[in-house]
Amino acid sequence: MSENTFDSMTQLRDALRDFAAERDWDQFHSPKNLAMALNVEAGELLEHFQWLTEQASRELPEDTLGAVGAELADVLIYLVRLADQLGIDLLRAAKAKIELNARRYPADQVRGSSRKYHERP
Amino acid sequence: MSENTFDSMTQLRDALRDFAAERDWDQFHSPKNLAMALNVEAGELLEHFQWLTEQASRELPEDTLGAVGAELADVLIYLVRLADQLGIDLLRAAKAKIELNARRYPADQVRGSSRKYHERP
Amino acid sequence: MSENTFDSMTQLRDALRDFAAERDWDQFHSPKNLAMALNVEAGELLEHFQWLTEQASRELPEDTLGAVGAELADVLIYLVRLADQLGIDLLRAAKAKIELNARRYPADQVRGSSRKYHERP
Amino acid sequence: MSENTFDSMTQLRDALRDFAAERDWDQFHSPKNLAMALNVEAGELLEHFQWLTEQASRELPEDTLGAVGAELADVLIYLVRLADQLGIDLLRAAKAKIELNARRYPADQVRGSSRKYHERP
Repeated sequence: MSENTFDSMTQLRDALRDFAAERDWDQFHSPKNLAMALNVEAGELLEHFQWLTEQASRELPEDTLGAVGAELADVLIYLVRLADQLGIDLLRAAKAKIELNARRYPADQVRGSSRKYHERP
Repeated sequence: MSENTFDSMTQLRDALRDFAAERDWDQFHSPKNLAMALNVEAGELLEHFQWLTEQASRELPEDTLGAVGAELADVLIYLVRLADQLGIDLLRAAKAKIELNARRYPADQVRGSSRKYHERP
Repeated sequence: MSENTFDSMTQLRDALRDFAAERDWDQFHSPKNLAMALNVEAGELLEHFQWLTEQASRELPEDTLGAVGAELADVLIYLVRLADQLGIDLLRAAKAKIELNARRYPADQVRGSSRKYHERP
Repeated sequence: MSENTFDSMTQLRDALRDFAAERDWDQFHSPKNLAMALNVEAGELLEHFQWLTEQASRELPEDTLGAVGAELADVLIYLVRLADQLGIDLLRAAKAKIELNARRYPADQVRGSSRKYHERP
């Protein structure tokens, strides 16, 4: 295991379990509250992009990139914590969702179309 | 690799790259737009919890749990896609954030306290 | 007209028009951007409530109440600005929506029911 | 009073009070829950704009405009309901906020600047 990262989502989940347990914070981590916290962090992420053009958002300066990375981390942290409280396996849920999307949006029918895309990404 | 899940975040990231490439959707996947999409999905997640008590949110019925899992998947999908567009390593960013939080909220000072906790989770 | 408030939504709308015009900010106030800004402020509002019990949220201390009031103002400001850019009359839209809700949720059928309510507030 | 609109925010507030009272819904309308509901509606509003260019968001087709108007109404409804539960006067709060912003962003210093603007709209 590297010092600077997690090897897997499971390792991240376990680190967050320990973090909460050491602080006796499970009492605050109801799914309702965690869903709120996730939205708060998603809003902080959005704040960085609200006045940028799409093009500028593809070319963030280094310091903004660092701040955005920290917001992404916050979203991931609450996402993993919430999934853990609910007993949901995130990677499995993502796999199922992508397979559903593949059936919904056949590549040969929606290619490059913002129209179809627009209705449901 | 199992048929029913992804082995890692990297594998999920690659699947999402392929999915977008096959549909020529990168043109819509500016970080600005992806940050919006992530917030939209976070809002759909929140909808499931808005009128529930905290206790009820800990005891979701099976069908709600399935629907919530699909929303969590959507959030994860846009999160991974956005991080990829920005060249950010999510697990590394999460590691850095948790270490920062550990310094900010020493377990022996904030244990069980909603007060300290409240100021910054 | 009082010094300390607006007499009407129309007066607020006009003040916001002037504010943006004086700063040449209409160029940033696309509906897309304003919808993002509204979500950012809604998230800041949510932050105040994320770790509170419902009961505590009904009994906010005075300083929190002031901060929450400022967030509510921010949401209203972007809401009015966005409606103005789209040519939508907010009070008229609210009237139409409430009449629709009255047909959807007949008082004698949904009274006190979190069940019905839950499905669509 | 017109049949098709509210004459004032006060009238809207009173209509929402009656609506909730007739259904015995005050029990669900804690500030915490209302702040969540407001965010859910803000997310539904955002959904309409997520894949549009800024220019396209300025030129919505008629049917989208109607749907967006209904979302704006939902945001306003929860905003007014939340302010009422907290005893906050929205128009007064907006007046105070605009005066603060006028001091923060003097027109002659920030005109046309996305830079200054960007830091805090």
